[in-house]
Amino acid sequence: MKTRVPLRDWGEDRLVARLVRGLPSAEGVVVGPGDDCAVLESPPGGKCHQLLKTDAVVEGVHFLASSPPAAVGWKAAARAVSDIAAMGGRPTHAVVTVVAPGLTATSWLLAVYRGLARCARTHGFSLAGGETSGAPDGAPVMLNVTMLGEVEPGRCVLRSGGRPGDAVFVTGRLGGSLASGRHLTFRPRLAEAQWLARHVRPSAMMDLSDGLGQDLPRLARASGTGWLIDPARLPCHRGCTPAEALGDGEDFELLFTVPRSRATRLPAAWRTAFPKVPLTCLGTLEPAGREEPALHGGYEHFRTLRPARGRPGAAAAGRARSATS
Amino acid sequence: MKTRVPLRDWGEDRLVARLVRGLPSAEGVVVGPGDDCAVLESPPGGKCHQLLKTDAVVEGVHFLASSPPAAVGWKAAARAVSDIAAMGGRPTHAVVTVVAPGLTATSWLLAVYRGLARCARTHGFSLAGGETSGAPDGAPVMLNVTMLGEVEPGRCVLRSGGRPGDAVFVTGRLGGSLASGRHLTFRPRLAEAQWLARHVRPSAMMDLSDGLGQDLPRLARASGTGWLIDPARLPCHRGCTPAEALGDGEDFELLFTVPRSRATRLPAAWRTAFPKVPLTCLGTLEPAGREEPALHGGYEHFRTLRPARGRPGAAAAGRARSATS
Repeated sequence: MKTRVPLRDWGEDRLVARLVRGLPSAEGVVVGPGDDCAVLESPPGGKCHQLLKTDAVVEGVHFLASSPPAAVGWKAAARAVSDIAAMGGRPTHAVVTVVAPGLTATSWLLAVYRGLARCARTHGFSLAGGETSGAPDGAPVMLNVTMLGEVEPGRCVLRSGGRPGDAVFVTGRLGGSLASGRHLTFRPRLAEAQWLARHVRPSAMMDLSDGLGQDLPRLARASGTGWLIDPARLPCHRGCTPAEALGDGEDFELLFTVPRSRATRLPAAWRTAFPKVPLTCLGTLEPAGREEPALHGGYEHFRTLRPARGRPGAAAAGRARSATS
Repeated sequence: MKTRVPLRDWGEDRLVARLVRGLPSAEGVVVGPGDDCAVLESPPGGKCHQLLKTDAVVEGVHFLASSPPAAVGWKAAARAVSDIAAMGGRPTHAVVTVVAPGLTATSWLLAVYRGLARCARTHGFSLAGGETSGAPDGAPVMLNVTMLGEVEPGRCVLRSGGRPGDAVFVTGRLGGSLASGRHLTFRPRLAEAQWLARHVRPSAMMDLSDGLGQDLPRLARASGTGWLIDPARLPCHRGCTPAEALGDGEDFELLFTVPRSRATRLPAAWRTAFPKVPLTCLGTLEPAGREEPALHGGYEHFRTLRPARGRPGAAAAGRARSATS
């Protein structure tokens, strides 16, 4: 008889790799499971590839019952915008699923929708439809957002294009997203990512959702490389330790790599374009096998987590996420 | 201070109408919230509109912990196929979100994915990506499927095109979907809907998910009409009463209307094309204000439901669903 192994005993990346093995693909899928978004070929005559991303926030994991509902709606949509951005794309249309017990306050859900709508207006996508479903009494509320986007084929940036020698950059500051509440109000790096895709053409890019300690190894694995980064350069948020910057997750900053030839002039051009957004070169991609330092921390799905700093009981709030696409 | 009104005290259609009021739309949205799917304009040069549908199944609502997991995966995807079909379209790509507690058995989730993959191969769409997220211990498992489809603009069938005098048809038989287990194994009427869109051009169409008692009034409201149907003609599944045929829901049959001029020859042509699938003319659309008989029953989201026949404790399993698109 098969042993009943729970999800939390599998590594998340191993689980995802197993789930997507042998899935039916089809004509027109340029990039399937494994990147920030799926990439679908532009229809005949079309100029842009389509990007497709689905993503959920769950009460007790990504937000709390006490979180401001408009911020919950904002976050649910902004997470998907961040993934579209990380491919070099623009969001165009979203559809929303709400799963909630019948005792949920209607005013709460209306406020969630105001947050969704504000995110849509801010980032220029439509809320084209959705679905509501009941849930058993006591079940956590769940919001799923599926985002369509578009990207010109020549500007689409995957996780897998990094090469040994490429410089590794990260935007903004890392750590403490949950404790500070930033995970509910963050601004996806849409303008920054589009600027990068246009002017710098990163070799690889992704958004940081599970923490640099999880996500840099993912980018390197997808690119078939190792890495050499200097932990002393980690751009920690005020009050955060390097371990928290590596492991807290939900930073929604951009992690990207740039061939050395284009990396030299990047910092000056960036300062001109985005004077208020820090940009940090952490190190370089290296040949596979050289991974220094070995990175620890980062959010592992389905595992029991230490309580969040300053928010006992909030366990994983603000940090759970894993992409199979 | 605002009264805290729970979702279950709002009518579902009223809630959805309120949620989508004032949502940001955008260029390129042909049909927004309110139909089976959102319809997005074909890109310049493209031949087809795109269809976009998001839909969730929730443990304890749409399936039980004891339901065969491959059937749960099949159902999760087949529901969305049914919506794409009801617009006259073909499914092309799906992305899946799984929200599950860490103690969920990995073998269960792998079997769910086998069901998803079988549905994809059967209906010719790709599983282009997805997302996994943890949930608090004890939370129900939730699967969200977002389906992209395509339809030639001239063959796209909305809910809103019905006119007084049009004949009202329904495919298959109704009622008892939960009690029989059909809700887990149903075959979406994809071939039938495409044949209808091509050869019959229905004036309006939708799939029956919440029961004819809920869904016919929705189609009529969208079309600005009333109805006159003969309850004696209801094609009840063996052992089901007319009340169950109206109210059980999750039939996933097609409800459609056809102008009288094209309705006469339909039954004979249908029998040739689909000899094993019943087709029933229930009556006609009428001017608004004439709704006879007044229909009762059908699944209302967020409300407490009577236990399903023969499955005490399964309350709403197999029946919850509501479209905002």
